Amino acid sequence: MKKLINDPKAVVDESVEGFGLAHADLVTVHPDPLFVSRKNAKTGKVGLLSGGGSGHEPLHAGYVGFGMLDAAVPGAVFTSPTPDAIIPATVAANSGAGVVHIVKNYTGDVLNFETAAEMAQAEGIEVRTVLVNDDVAVEDSLYTAGRRGVGGTVLVEKIAGAAAERGDGLDAVAAIGQRVNDNVRTMGVALSACTVPHAGVPSFELAENEIEIGIGIHGEPGRHRIPMENADGITDRLLEPILADLKPAAGDKVLLFVNGMGGTPSSELYIVYRHAVKVLEAAGLGVERSLVGNYITALEMQGCSISVLRLDDEMTALWDAPVHTPALRWGM
Amino acid sequence: MKKLINDPKAVVDESVEGFGLAHADLVTVHPDPLFVSRKNAKTGKVGLLSGGGSGHEPLHAGYVGFGMLDAAVPGAVFTSPTPDAIIPATVAANSGAGVVHIVKNYTGDVLNFETAAEMAQAEGIEVRTVLVNDDVAVEDSLYTAGRRGVGGTVLVEKIAGAAAERGDGLDAVAAIGQRVNDNVRTMGVALSACTVPHAGVPSFELAENEIEIGIGIHGEPGRHRIPMENADGITDRLLEPILADLKPAAGDKVLLFVNGMGGTPSSELYIVYRHAVKVLEAAGLGVERSLVGNYITALEMQGCSISVLRLDDEMTALWDAPVHTPALRWGM
Repeated sequence: MKKLINDPKAVVDESVEGFGLAHADLVTVHPDPLFVSRKNAKTGKVGLLSGGGSGHEPLHAGYVGFGMLDAAVPGAVFTSPTPDAIIPATVAANSGAGVVHIVKNYTGDVLNFETAAEMAQAEGIEVRTVLVNDDVAVEDSLYTAGRRGVGGTVLVEKIAGAAAERGDGLDAVAAIGQRVNDNVRTMGVALSACTVPHAGVPSFELAENEIEIGIGIHGEPGRHRIPMENADGITDRLLEPILADLKPAAGDKVLLFVNGMGGTPSSELYIVYRHAVKVLEAAGLGVERSLVGNYITALEMQGCSISVLRLDDEMTALWDAPVHTPALRWGM
Repeated sequence: MKKLINDPKAVVDESVEGFGLAHADLVTVHPDPLFVSRKNAKTGKVGLLSGGGSGHEPLHAGYVGFGMLDAAVPGAVFTSPTPDAIIPATVAANSGAGVVHIVKNYTGDVLNFETAAEMAQAEGIEVRTVLVNDDVAVEDSLYTAGRRGVGGTVLVEKIAGAAAERGDGLDAVAAIGQRVNDNVRTMGVALSACTVPHAGVPSFELAENEIEIGIGIHGEPGRHRIPMENADGITDRLLEPILADLKPAAGDKVLLFVNGMGGTPSSELYIVYRHAVKVLEAAGLGVERSLVGNYITALEMQGCSISVLRLDDEMTALWDAPVHTPALRWGM
């Protein structure tokens, strides 16, 4: 294992410390228990909190800032954060109007956020939860009952964040987050495995000419392993189940999100994007918005995921609204 | 070799096509000869053009847009673009006030941009050239007489681009670009090699526990290979020659740029950033600005580079000025 780290056990603490130093204008890092909160949030705004295992950067701390999250809780690598960190982060995210928890559907995350939500509510903070489960690859998975939450999470956080920023109430912010989740589908592919620092060996093995279709963001099993194919063929394999499940109508407007898993050059992501646009347009869809890059990763895994979000006018306007976070920024 | 590509010979064309589709609001892709130009540039503004071998994305095409480049010429992977592409790109970048070529110091780039500059000047377009040679690793290299141009290029393009956007004349824009180059030093490290698509095998071999200090962005040799070290130790090894060469005075203000080579997670870059800040502050320097992420890469290489730019007030203001390109955006 070769990584730019010091102590494998200190990876998350040191990385978040560096992140806090680089983005001191936007975020505050609270070291113990570890969470990241936003500077200069409006009081009276609905708070947005997300979190989960580390190793998916820039998700989630990279999205703390204007128009997105108010706090994020990084767990250990690929390990859910515990309620003792989620609770103070919920308190930090609350400025009187309650807090929406955006939770990716993994058993540990669901349980720990649920416990924290109960504790926060006992302290008088209203909490709503949006559960993200956009991965069409498998119905149940290694760490999941039901579908996994993957790339769609970024879109939920952006759009719900914009709704909170414009002043929507607690239930409305949760409802728009839910609407994004209901209208987004994702599927990923791995060309290589990733290595969890404290494990020191790759999470799984792929043969020299083998790829895994439907991979999870922790390297957990997908649908099947197949021999390496070209980019257009892989793109077809990812889009087919997405469209079969989303069932968009001709004329629908969509956001196309091609996400890198961490070790894939952006040039390859654009090759995937190029073909994906053609497939969607051939299906009669209008690609109205797009996002291409490393936004929800699996350490240094090579591969990508494709997410398709069916847009309506309100979601489009909220997507376009200004955002200023370490990893996503426009309009300001 | 596992990559998200179709035909290895079509990698650049297809990737730039996808890039153009994803960023159609900002850029126009000209397919033959291949170059990328900016939409909606002011007329009468000094034009900025850069280019070079592909494989370093988002450099250069990712920096075409408001406040940075007016055009970019992507060559084949790790191969200089030829004058027949640089000339029409220069014409496209010119809106009457002349064009500054920002050229990384590699023999092929220097010759081809020089030829193109002569041809453009023969057609009545004034051209100035800023040669970027910020890599302190080696004095001469595989593809270079003199030092290589690496991470500092991003900073030259941003700051000179802001000067052009505010209306500076041709010589003034070239001079500020030159000033950035004179005040920036960079050094990189590779933890793994990268594979050029049409070669199909890694450019070099590193043993399981070996890293290369002073690596170039094409995998060309650096200073020495050493056994794997921890992130803080590697950071020290990169910063020591940077500071020895830059010779900043206590109290100087600097921009610290930790750049990923393409296959390294951002979490690791922040671990490097964390220690680099401490080293610079211990040297009496003020880290006033920073940039952390994949901005000039070597395909899927694992590793990073560190650049330190000594700032003055004008450079800082130009750095802070609004920019809107596919890969760098703030203030708008």
